[in-house]
Amino acid sequence: MKIRRSERLIDMTQYLLEHPHTLVSLTYFSERYASAKSSISEDLSIIKKTFKQRGTGILETIPGAAGGVRFIPEISFEAAKQIVDSLCERLSERERLLPGGYVYLSDLLGEPDLLRKVGQIIASKYNNRKIDAVMTVATKGVPIAQAVSYYLNVPFVIVRRDSKITEGSTVSVNYVSGSSERVEKMELSKRSLKRGSRVLVVDDFMKGGGTVNGMTSLIDEFEAELVGITVFAESTFSGRRMIEDYHSLLCVKEVDTQTKTIKVVPGNYFDQASSEK
Amino acid sequence: MKIRRSERLIDMTQYLLEHPHTLVSLTYFSERYASAKSSISEDLSIIKKTFKQRGTGILETIPGAAGGVRFIPEISFEAAKQIVDSLCERLSERERLLPGGYVYLSDLLGEPDLLRKVGQIIASKYNNRKIDAVMTVATKGVPIAQAVSYYLNVPFVIVRRDSKITEGSTVSVNYVSGSSERVEKMELSKRSLKRGSRVLVVDDFMKGGGTVNGMTSLIDEFEAELVGITVFAESTFSGRRMIEDYHSLLCVKEVDTQTKTIKVVPGNYFDQASSEK
Repeated sequence: MKIRRSERLIDMTQYLLEHPHTLVSLTYFSERYASAKSSISEDLSIIKKTFKQRGTGILETIPGAAGGVRFIPEISFEAAKQIVDSLCERLSERERLLPGGYVYLSDLLGEPDLLRKVGQIIASKYNNRKIDAVMTVATKGVPIAQAVSYYLNVPFVIVRRDSKITEGSTVSVNYVSGSSERVEKMELSKRSLKRGSRVLVVDDFMKGGGTVNGMTSLIDEFEAELVGITVFAESTFSGRRMIEDYHSLLCVKEVDTQTKTIKVVPGNYFDQASSEK
Repeated sequence: MKIRRSERLIDMTQYLLEHPHTLVSLTYFSERYASAKSSISEDLSIIKKTFKQRGTGILETIPGAAGGVRFIPEISFEAAKQIVDSLCERLSERERLLPGGYVYLSDLLGEPDLLRKVGQIIASKYNNRKIDAVMTVATKGVPIAQAVSYYLNVPFVIVRRDSKITEGSTVSVNYVSGSSERVEKMELSKRSLKRGSRVLVVDDFMKGGGTVNGMTSLIDEFEAELVGITVFAESTFSGRRMIEDYHSLLCVKEVDTQTKTIKVVPGNYFDQASSEK
């Protein structure tokens, strides 16, 4: 059965989207569609052009016998900014204000469409860095970590504050919770991270940076390497922050429990994006 | 600028994959590509055919003025079976055996490629049911819930065993942990689930069914409706199980801590699939 170009384009698009950051050989596609490599090559250049035009990402071509193509998902600065601007509005809704000045986020962190976009935005920042694992802390960091891991196509590991028998041996560290100054404990299953792994830390919210700081200590304990830190939202913190080098998509500037107002602006993700580009 | 069919096919494929279970009007595509509806119609029939042939899913066509197309991701029985068979092998690895006869799963629940497949397999089971939300319990159920929610395109909500100030008001229930017979408490943020919601419950592991049973009590408390229960893995349970009607992808048949062997077989997902089809 001969497979037409249109069918190949549809199936290849799907295959590439589901295998980001993965080298796919021309031979693989050639066999999958029983088509000549020259035809596959032409297909790929059409896909490459369309992905670029539509802001889907970059289709890298690696020449040579061991070569092929690799799809790197990307989001443009403008598209990311638009998504974050609309998030600023949603986060500012007064119903989100909880006693103690906390902001309710759990609904957002359960929306698949939003998570897809957040994953894409965060992953885009690290497209040129080698990353072996995404790390987060349970529970609310997990959706962010999973969303990012889908686009970077590397596993994510979950640090826990409570001990579980289903984790096997663990490594634990103590850390100072920045806002409350309490000393707490977090731990990670010993078998979940290899020595030398290059790790991206993500979390839902950062105030004093204590939790994120705890994760960087864990990375040290595992003799792994920190590549970067990105949080979904940060809040302006009056004390001395433990973490300096990080990205945030959103920044909760002010919370006024009297007037019930929350002021949210785009985070430093965009400052750095403009200076890096 | 005129947009060629090949480019439309690539971009439409991506759009449909990212918007499962969503009605997209012909007008939307027609404007997106500045192309006639008749051309869009032809494009869609090519995509429909290719998706069907490749086992990607069904492209439903809804006729009329309010019509359009809807992409329903699906996985074939054979493809699902093959994935689960290879999972049986991985789960049987003796290194997974933990003290107390527990099986280490956390690495699998952090692999994006595996989660994509598991999400697709579980979601496929409920393609013909109306579902408003996926529910799970923290922490290890979260990756499963998120994976399924990506394919069903509905939000997921996370039930917690510990109280958090960032959740606002919660509703809590007591439940009996099936294996240990302890009475425990689980709770869900009040604003996370609307009355009357149709809920799919998922979890990573089920032994006695106590945790899942707790979630069904919570669903009652919210005056919501249980649509179904699917767990990634179950273990054979000698006692009386609290939950009868559920699906499992994997079943841990035997764990022998002496000989360090784990016997894992496909779960009842496949029994029912064959009888339903």
